[in-house]
Amino acid sequence: MKVLVINSGSSSLKYQLIDANNEKVLAKGLCDRIGIGQSFIKNTGIDNETKIKEKEMGNHKVAIVEVLDTLVEGGKGVLSSMDEIHAVGHRVVHGGEKFHDSVIIDDDVMETIQECVELAPLHNPANIVGIEACKQVLPHKPMVAVFDTAFHQSIPKHAYLYALPYEMYEKYGIRKYGFHGTSHKYVAQRAAKLLGKSFEDMKVITCHLGNGASICAIKNGKSVDTSMGFTPLAGLAMGTRSGTVDPAVIAYIMSKEKMGIDEVNEYLNKKSGILGISGVSSDFRDVMAAAGEGNKRAELAIEIFCYRVKNYISEYIGVLNGTDAVVFTAGVGENNNIIRRIVVANMENLGISIDNRLNDKAVGMEMDVSNPGAKVKTLVIPTNEELAIARETLKLLR
Amino acid sequence: MKVLVINSGSSSLKYQLIDANNEKVLAKGLCDRIGIGQSFIKNTGIDNETKIKEKEMGNHKVAIVEVLDTLVEGGKGVLSSMDEIHAVGHRVVHGGEKFHDSVIIDDDVMETIQECVELAPLHNPANIVGIEACKQVLPHKPMVAVFDTAFHQSIPKHAYLYALPYEMYEKYGIRKYGFHGTSHKYVAQRAAKLLGKSFEDMKVITCHLGNGASICAIKNGKSVDTSMGFTPLAGLAMGTRSGTVDPAVIAYIMSKEKMGIDEVNEYLNKKSGILGISGVSSDFRDVMAAAGEGNKRAELAIEIFCYRVKNYISEYIGVLNGTDAVVFTAGVGENNNIIRRIVVANMENLGISIDNRLNDKAVGMEMDVSNPGAKVKTLVIPTNEELAIARETLKLLR
Repeated sequence: MKVLVINSGSSSLKYQLIDANNEKVLAKGLCDRIGIGQSFIKNTGIDNETKIKEKEMGNHKVAIVEVLDTLVEGGKGVLSSMDEIHAVGHRVVHGGEKFHDSVIIDDDVMETIQECVELAPLHNPANIVGIEACKQVLPHKPMVAVFDTAFHQSIPKHAYLYALPYEMYEKYGIRKYGFHGTSHKYVAQRAAKLLGKSFEDMKVITCHLGNGASICAIKNGKSVDTSMGFTPLAGLAMGTRSGTVDPAVIAYIMSKEKMGIDEVNEYLNKKSGILGISGVSSDFRDVMAAAGEGNKRAELAIEIFCYRVKNYISEYIGVLNGTDAVVFTAGVGENNNIIRRIVVANMENLGISIDNRLNDKAVGMEMDVSNPGAKVKTLVIPTNEELAIARETLKLLR
Repeated sequence: MKVLVINSGSSSLKYQLIDANNEKVLAKGLCDRIGIGQSFIKNTGIDNETKIKEKEMGNHKVAIVEVLDTLVEGGKGVLSSMDEIHAVGHRVVHGGEKFHDSVIIDDDVMETIQECVELAPLHNPANIVGIEACKQVLPHKPMVAVFDTAFHQSIPKHAYLYALPYEMYEKYGIRKYGFHGTSHKYVAQRAAKLLGKSFEDMKVITCHLGNGASICAIKNGKSVDTSMGFTPLAGLAMGTRSGTVDPAVIAYIMSKEKMGIDEVNEYLNKKSGILGISGVSSDFRDVMAAAGEGNKRAELAIEIFCYRVKNYISEYIGVLNGTDAVVFTAGVGENNNIIRRIVVANMENLGISIDNRLNDKAVGMEMDVSNPGAKVKTLVIPTNEELAIARETLKLLR
């Protein structure tokens, strides 16, 4: 039983073909520059060999056909024919308040995803294009939508509502939605397994620290709070995003820099965060290298990032009234032992303390890096959103 | 030795005359509607009798003269003459990065306060007018400026800097300043005294919960973080202020409601918070009464307010790596036992737990309301910013 996982952007389409029986990745890749010229497909096979092929792809339908051609490769590919594909799982960014879980895609579902476009004008349209293209090319395959927001729909109202006039929520749905839900849920479930606990009977704080970053408080298998908000701009300092700022700062920047509101929004989303503070890069590896060479602003960017992560972990320890575990995942969380060490330093009175040698070893692998006596387990768990989407897809089709 | 404490607003002037020897309030009052017609002075004497007198006050100088006249009252007042006033202490809202402590006012100080006007365009000009008026009427009295921001100047850079492009800080001083510093410091010092500890060797989290509200993490006598930011809009949900929201919400409201940025700023400052959620009032007493009658939005406003307070307390327990005490102060914090009870509920794993009977008794008075076994002391301590200003004034003049 093979599941094709699709993550469709406005001019790109990422895919993975996963064998659901053994959860092996049979192939993965990316179609890029769709509809904007010089497009290409990059595919990595089960042999870990990556091939790039230039191919004009004017739209997502052509891209899907190209993906399937690549997977079959005239009988020499990982699939003998596209009939072997059991189902397709689609990542959809925003499910608004409509989707509390993954769903099998039908016309009603498509309409509802369409209604959520207003909440994610950059992401949902691209996801829809990807689904429509798939439906054209693979008309008889069952398809499932897996939402970034769904896992957070269990957050209680006092935590998801902003202290704005209530009509902002009623008229426009302005509230905290949260993102990275598929990842938070996946690593939290892995954490339960690693610790021999039941996911439904556990408290865990998951730190998804990538270029985008968010933290989630999970109790009894449900998200009860998360750091991102109405959009993925809120919360932590990120690669290029400011995270939370005093809302009054926006008017101040607009007046001082003679910017329009859209410009400021762009400024906060694309030029702030680690990049904006350090002036070096949005990539932690570059920023840490610069800090190592004595760049004070790079050092400051790291300190600010880590401080905010620590703040949210502490906040969620309060929300959960204690936690069984803290999990680090995603690019920075999985691989950057130094960031992890700074974040959890001086938290032993909250029950967190790590073994630095174990922490240094935990790079891109599952590991308990806690000190033996630590009340709270600190875990490193690589995320795998594609596998999570494949699992959700199968679960729904059974 | 008598100190006159002045808190000057744009069309008002609050005052207290404090006997520094026994810290007794000899008189207190308010000149209101200065310069806008129908102005009056309200004075409460040492006998607790309040008198209101209509009096045309075209500017703050006339108001100061009126205050002094009232205090002397032709030889029948609390002062036999204004010569008895030893010094004047002025509240100044914003000291920017220039003032880490209270200062004796001279020409250089006045210039620097003037430079901070840009950071507090609504407050500092009024404070300056008050000081200038006092200097004219009492030209030979020493005067001291006590800043709301000064206590927070010890906050480290990784905590006060936003994850914005660094030039926003360099060019415009955009950073976290924090407010209510005089109050946070005062109640923290009282807490040290009550617990028999040294203020310089203690961790304490102070919750100033009034119509404006902020929380402060204090370590070894120094503020290390606080919930307000560049302006007093940030942080907690307040009477009419939203506190922190996803910064992207601002553009969304502007586009949906066709508001300009100044309108949105006003909306977040004046129509949000407890008022905006409940639709009832910005006053907790009204909102709690409505909740008691079954108003769901009033209930929600209370839950949101308390949740955010809990979040900051938890965050600062992380920042401090544990705390000796949590202090509640200001209108809501001193008087509202129900709010306090909701805030600290389910925090026993963080060491916080209160005796409900003690908590119910603690209305407007100093009290340790912790459970005997609680690791963290929960204290109710009424704030007294005027007394703190009087003390600062005397300290500097000694």
